[in-house]
Amino acid sequence: MAKERVVDVDLRWGDSDAFAHVNNVVFFRLLEEARARVIPTEGPGSTILSAGLVVAEQQLKYTAPLHYRPEPIQVGMRVDHIGGSSFRLACRVFDSTSGDVFAEGFVSLVAYDFGLGSPRKLSDDERSWLTA
Amino acid sequence: MAKERVVDVDLRWGDSDAFAHVNNVVFFRLLEEARARVIPTEGPGSTILSAGLVVAEQQLKYTAPLHYRPEPIQVGMRVDHIGGSSFRLACRVFDSTSGDVFAEGFVSLVAYDFGLGSPRKLSDDERSWLTA
Amino acid sequence: MAKERVVDVDLRWGDSDAFAHVNNVVFFRLLEEARARVIPTEGPGSTILSAGLVVAEQQLKYTAPLHYRPEPIQVGMRVDHIGGSSFRLACRVFDSTSGDVFAEGFVSLVAYDFGLGSPRKLSDDERSWLTA
Amino acid sequence: MAKERVVDVDLRWGDSDAFAHVNNVVFFRLLEEARARVIPTEGPGSTILSAGLVVAEQQLKYTAPLHYRPEPIQVGMRVDHIGGSSFRLACRVFDSTSGDVFAEGFVSLVAYDFGLGSPRKLSDDERSWLTA
Repeated sequence: MAKERVVDVDLRWGDSDAFAHVNNVVFFRLLEEARARVIPTEGPGSTILSAGLVVAEQQLKYTAPLHYRPEPIQVGMRVDHIGGSSFRLACRVFDSTSGDVFAEGFVSLVAYDFGLGSPRKLSDDERSWLTA
Repeated sequence: MAKERVVDVDLRWGDSDAFAHVNNVVFFRLLEEARARVIPTEGPGSTILSAGLVVAEQQLKYTAPLHYRPEPIQVGMRVDHIGGSSFRLACRVFDSTSGDVFAEGFVSLVAYDFGLGSPRKLSDDERSWLTA
Repeated sequence: MAKERVVDVDLRWGDSDAFAHVNNVVFFRLLEEARARVIPTEGPGSTILSAGLVVAEQQLKYTAPLHYRPEPIQVGMRVDHIGGSSFRLACRVFDSTSGDVFAEGFVSLVAYDFGLGSPRKLSDDERSWLTA
Repeated sequence: MAKERVVDVDLRWGDSDAFAHVNNVVFFRLLEEARARVIPTEGPGSTILSAGLVVAEQQLKYTAPLHYRPEPIQVGMRVDHIGGSSFRLACRVFDSTSGDVFAEGFVSLVAYDFGLGSPRKLSDDERSWLTA
């Protein structure tokens, strides 16, 4: 995932706020959904999600208003940093047809052992998947 | 729309609550999204949405737990009553592959003139679309 | 809870949709929140929530538009039916100062044993709390 | 608002995700709600909200898990930068009793003229309110 992975995510009419724009908070929901559809739950590296992953930090810069439409928007994600127990995804919400970018930023995630209640080291399989 | 129209609607990981089921409230969001994707915004009958439509009443009976999955679920909608300024959609949330039904009920909608602040009569074009 | 219990619930600016009204779906969230603040988690009858409770059916009729405001709205709940493993709450969302009612309906809840994956009988303590 | 303003914001049971923590996305909703309750809508400086305000960028670092509870949490906001048409709020989500901090970060907001579709200069009244 060193190269950008692009995921289609559907908007919902209810994502709009009283300004009739997709609400700024919802963009983080779109990022979450894109992760849920890409981060592996099967095969080598799968423990990265099933063993627990928590959001440590996230940031978005909004660059254009997004309006509801039935066609999905695209979320791009690329691993741009890997630490001992964490990694960072550079993210953008965009329209792959027009090239318009609505928001960009990053999400930092920590591999977490919910049983122990503490971060855990990324395994070799997980690192392989992240750097592939 | 006298015959059932079936719409694919994507779930989101964030639709689940602390019981790890798609939350009961979210089912009404799925119905809303299905309406947004079906009720016409162009052509004869299009005024039904663009001229304003408000939810007057809705009900759901939950028949099976629904868990997040990347594949869409299906929402079925069928007009089962038309009044002077309103109509009712019989609705169900189901899996078209397995046949499992997760919830069923109805939504009553009123054609509304936001300018006047009052219900308005359904036009002939709108009735045609609803009974087609 | 045979007499109406009234709970203050805060609205959020983000509850409004593109029509700048509190969205119809959100009303069910307000009912859920009112239940979370009233249904006991400690003392006799407490198992009603901690042992599991699922929404079996719910319905709302919307009677007036609700706009965001920093002051809480009121949710009224009254047990109007008790079965072997279930009970029903008559509900309304209203403004206790003006007397305006925004929505009314009901929620049917089933005591559920998540371990067994099946409904369970209401205990005497739970019945006492429901009928008090 | 050069000094921290602290606002009580109620959590909702439905804010929790499948991990039974208040979901990371929801924290931005809490910040939004705190702004809605503090940024003036009446008196000198009031145009800052009524004339339009959009979120340009926001960031949060999560420092401890937050669990649903009926008592409100606290959101602290302090203006730490003012530009020609924008300002930045340093934010934190915390418990004023225990001192526990759950998240901290910032939100950058731009005064926006929706009629013209472009940013607008902050007025003297607005600057006075922001620096007070």
